[in-house]
Amino acid sequence: MTPLRIYVDFVPPPAALELLWEGTAGHELVFASNPVTSVLAKAVKDPQVDTADVLFGQPDVEALLGAPKVRWAHVSSSGVTRYDTPEVRVRLRERGIRLTNSAAVYAEACALQAMSFILAEARSLPTSLASRAANGTSEWNALRDSCVSPSGQRILLVGHGAIATRLAAFLAPLGAEVFGYRRNPRGDEPVPMVPANRFEDWLGTMDQVVDILPESGDTRGFFDARRFAAMKPGAVFHNIGRGATVDQEALLDALRSGRLKSAWLDVTTPEPLPDDHPLRREPRCHITPHVAGGHRDETSTLVRHFNANLARFVAGQELVDRVV
Amino acid sequence: MTPLRIYVDFVPPPAALELLWEGTAGHELVFASNPVTSVLAKAVKDPQVDTADVLFGQPDVEALLGAPKVRWAHVSSSGVTRYDTPEVRVRLRERGIRLTNSAAVYAEACALQAMSFILAEARSLPTSLASRAANGTSEWNALRDSCVSPSGQRILLVGHGAIATRLAAFLAPLGAEVFGYRRNPRGDEPVPMVPANRFEDWLGTMDQVVDILPESGDTRGFFDARRFAAMKPGAVFHNIGRGATVDQEALLDALRSGRLKSAWLDVTTPEPLPDDHPLRREPRCHITPHVAGGHRDETSTLVRHFNANLARFVAGQELVDRVV
Repeated sequence: MTPLRIYVDFVPPPAALELLWEGTAGHELVFASNPVTSVLAKAVKDPQVDTADVLFGQPDVEALLGAPKVRWAHVSSSGVTRYDTPEVRVRLRERGIRLTNSAAVYAEACALQAMSFILAEARSLPTSLASRAANGTSEWNALRDSCVSPSGQRILLVGHGAIATRLAAFLAPLGAEVFGYRRNPRGDEPVPMVPANRFEDWLGTMDQVVDILPESGDTRGFFDARRFAAMKPGAVFHNIGRGATVDQEALLDALRSGRLKSAWLDVTTPEPLPDDHPLRREPRCHITPHVAGGHRDETSTLVRHFNANLARFVAGQELVDRVV
Repeated sequence: MTPLRIYVDFVPPPAALELLWEGTAGHELVFASNPVTSVLAKAVKDPQVDTADVLFGQPDVEALLGAPKVRWAHVSSSGVTRYDTPEVRVRLRERGIRLTNSAAVYAEACALQAMSFILAEARSLPTSLASRAANGTSEWNALRDSCVSPSGQRILLVGHGAIATRLAAFLAPLGAEVFGYRRNPRGDEPVPMVPANRFEDWLGTMDQVVDILPESGDTRGFFDARRFAAMKPGAVFHNIGRGATVDQEALLDALRSGRLKSAWLDVTTPEPLPDDHPLRREPRCHITPHVAGGHRDETSTLVRHFNANLARFVAGQELVDRVV
């Protein structure tokens, strides 16, 4: 087949770059003059996009839609917020541009991050790592008594894709009852789905809620005052999705009122959350700086995923992690 | 049958006490005049022991062996260090005294504690909870890159009983290769057992080592300089067994030299470890204050376990968690 011109808007580290050269042998690799350094940064427009057949990275939406030759864009993140609007979807379809993301690359690490939150909560890890309690003291007994097993708990995974599927598998041997929620259930989910029209009723029965929602018009502010108020008293809330899916004022109120026992947030608005933000002062609010998807040799995993999809694209096969 | 005189050397909280009254109905409950407050404390001798048929708690070894009527002692901990000597075992057998422990009560919580260590390590949780790294910065990339999935790792569980069995089940979906080690393999272990005569060779292939050893003459100082030196460079060491099974000077050297990537210790010598102990100053040494077995309503679980064993004792059935 005709060699493809593949535009890459980030600079892979040496090992990943070597994998990329291998995987794209026979095609032409073009690197951005102004590489992207973060999946959340806005890409700088680059005229080289106009001559590309394939885009790999975080392409600017307008540049992508305006690029005359592009047939496939592979986004280097799991989140595809900027492309996930009805209008962009329609325009991509009209242009016959396929859009894929890198969900498979980050699902494992994101599910492990959620597991680390659930287990750190179960074992009161932040408190016990800081404790010097002596055996048999009341502080020691209180610390042990604060540990609650997920066994028998009801855990709701909100936003049900690759991450939730992996997380449900990790949770299975712990003896928790795991439920899922997604806008459009497909019937092949590995756990029972909560009915959308009775979401708040079911929410109120859950001991832990894991927000894995992507950011879109439908999900912005999804966890608002009404939904926090519907939660079971003493529930634990986790967010490894996107900060914008949570009304942080409402979350703060839910923590202060004791409605929520604790919150574990990998994503916030803004990122990083300033040191003087009130959520930073809540002792039961635990915050990590949007690292859930990160893992050793991440860019190599990302490039392998792209290479495998490129092979499928060239062979005319269905692409993995297809969004549009 | 004749009512049994049951001597209890600790004071259960109200809910657990009620369960104990229910479970021992028809028998006589006798409470110690000087109750035990910690499983590691030495019990005070009490003449009431001499009239008891059953002891429940942390009976003093000499008092137990000297008590003329005792036929069964149920220890309220998983560890049975003070009774686990050849001499005591022989004397208990001579006297026909059965000894049981509470392993089943603590196995779940101990396995969860080890899981919380393994996942906090996998996701660099202590560092990321303290981080304010902004997206795309080198600190942020380094933090993400420090996260290593247990998938594909080799994890060795040293000391293979109820805790290891549960931990192996928890680890299964994570894709780790789990191995076990115990003095006397029985052949029914759920994971492959490392051969005792080639222990150090196998140790050197493990990415993570979980010490679940009880304290006894055979296990004291089990992890010494020679064994730490045999470990794979960059390995992670966990201890949820007993502090005395580790030569802490050797552990300190292994951390300082970089042989070990990190250590997660729930047990130390002494407990709690003083603030000025050098292990406290190692940034990659994470210490919790002997809380691994603790959990909400722990004493109720303990009493239920005793009640169930009492029913078996009365019915002449084999006791659960039998030690001697």
